[in-house]
Amino acid sequence: MNKHAIGIDIGGTNTTIGLVSPDGTVVATTNLSTQEYSDSSKFMDDIVSGIRKLLGDHEGATVAGIGIGAPNANFSTGYIEANTANLRMKEPIAVCNILQDRFNIPAVASNDADAAAIGERIYGGAKECDNFVMVTLGTGVGSGFFVEGRLVHGANCMAGELGHLIVNPNGRDCSCGRKGCLETYTSARGICDTYRELVSKNAGTHDIAHLQQITCKDIGDLANKGDATAIETFRITARWLAIGLANAATFSNPEKIFLMGGPTRVGNPLLHPLNHYFSEQLLYIYKDRVSIELSQLNYNDAAILGAAALIHLK
Amino acid sequence: MNKHAIGIDIGGTNTTIGLVSPDGTVVATTNLSTQEYSDSSKFMDDIVSGIRKLLGDHEGATVAGIGIGAPNANFSTGYIEANTANLRMKEPIAVCNILQDRFNIPAVASNDADAAAIGERIYGGAKECDNFVMVTLGTGVGSGFFVEGRLVHGANCMAGELGHLIVNPNGRDCSCGRKGCLETYTSARGICDTYRELVSKNAGTHDIAHLQQITCKDIGDLANKGDATAIETFRITARWLAIGLANAATFSNPEKIFLMGGPTRVGNPLLHPLNHYFSEQLLYIYKDRVSIELSQLNYNDAAILGAAALIHLK
Repeated sequence: MNKHAIGIDIGGTNTTIGLVSPDGTVVATTNLSTQEYSDSSKFMDDIVSGIRKLLGDHEGATVAGIGIGAPNANFSTGYIEANTANLRMKEPIAVCNILQDRFNIPAVASNDADAAAIGERIYGGAKECDNFVMVTLGTGVGSGFFVEGRLVHGANCMAGELGHLIVNPNGRDCSCGRKGCLETYTSARGICDTYRELVSKNAGTHDIAHLQQITCKDIGDLANKGDATAIETFRITARWLAIGLANAATFSNPEKIFLMGGPTRVGNPLLHPLNHYFSEQLLYIYKDRVSIELSQLNYNDAAILGAAALIHLK
Repeated sequence: MNKHAIGIDIGGTNTTIGLVSPDGTVVATTNLSTQEYSDSSKFMDDIVSGIRKLLGDHEGATVAGIGIGAPNANFSTGYIEANTANLRMKEPIAVCNILQDRFNIPAVASNDADAAAIGERIYGGAKECDNFVMVTLGTGVGSGFFVEGRLVHGANCMAGELGHLIVNPNGRDCSCGRKGCLETYTSARGICDTYRELVSKNAGTHDIAHLQQITCKDIGDLANKGDATAIETFRITARWLAIGLANAATFSNPEKIFLMGGPTRVGNPLLHPLNHYFSEQLLYIYKDRVSIELSQLNYNDAAILGAAALIHLK
């Protein structure tokens, strides 16, 4: 922990490369526009150039390794898998091998939620916490589980898909083809669906076409201004999330459950009912033994810190 | 693994003490009637006598340790906790300390489901399987999770409460005070409730008082004789169990899920629809990567083998 790390956050729109100091400060960053690339070798060349630039600007920094967080990155193979949604590059990308060969330091890749969990462990609120769950709320819902100080990978490095926990077997259609997955209610998209359902119900046959573009942030702003429908939206969201988190507790008996991501930023309209329902839905043997906390990583740096922290997994 | 082990299965009605050979054969057993004891020191004295008798009868056997499986045994403290339902002895019982002191060999205690999981790992079908879930169906539903070759204990040794996964938030009342826990549908008791509901529905206002004493085994026998209501009972049971097992897979990405316990003995009326619904409810990324299997431990020996296997946890 006395060396710097490179963290690379690969998203569908942008890729950010950051140099992270041993104490978890993002010292400098550089960006690429992911969506402009259809050729992965050009993409990787430009990532290598970006890293070289950061290292050139900070010649005193000794770097322990390179961590890569991406939606479809596989920890065991070190590849971004083929046909990743939101990437124009459809072939598998050997990110770890390429970066290890160019820089001769370890490179580790994993999905965003696992990166968030290890980020919290190394730089955030879980430094002293061996048993915790990280839940990332965003376009989807992801999770990473730490058990006795170790991240749970599972047989195929596919553990921790809490977003696809079925919480309502006859509920909403999920993009996975099943019904009632947690993320159909608690992702940013699910929250917007709930709001539109409520408005539609209240307005009867009223046209809600103008609401197609509303965002989770918009609904959060409305809730914080006292809009009753927006407040009810987050109450419903909180109940489903509480059931999902209570179910997570029955698996791994964590001390803490951390939340990260856009929808958490609404604050009390979500968090107040969440604590109420979590207390109601939690199995009694866990009462007072597990708490819900917000990630202690700075929101803007979290993805880079999570990626950088991955180098501590090996 | 070249030594014998003592396995003690403490149940509300009976306690069985067994001597287990290194290859997983139950060489000899002796029994106590748990329900006759209200004084735990007398109970422990009689357990000590039972162990002495087994060892006296098999003087050539070197014993590595003593494992104790009990519904409310705590792995980290080595105690059976206070006020265990079904035990007349209400004080905490220091089973591990007492047995270690008397025999000067290690003693390890854990709950039945964890014992079943480690039993499968040491003596059964999970010898080569690092990532699996053991689900025990009985009066309740329990579970034990192995992740990367290690049993998941959790922060308070309370991990693996799959029976209390909420699968139907507006569903049946559970003894835990919440609604729609997996065990309200898939325990022996839950299966009987489903059968009675179906009979009551089919019979209209017909009196079903005569069904109060029906057992899960009775319903299994009816199903195997072709009784349509009993067959429908197990179809419904299988659907809920499939949702619970699919949810377990999203947590730990296991290679195998083992089932153990009375309700599994009905065979095809449960297992055939279970495989159908599991395939339907499993998140697509796990398809062909996880299978449901029956425990390979002999039904009558499973509890003793699980208890004996606990000594391999330390």
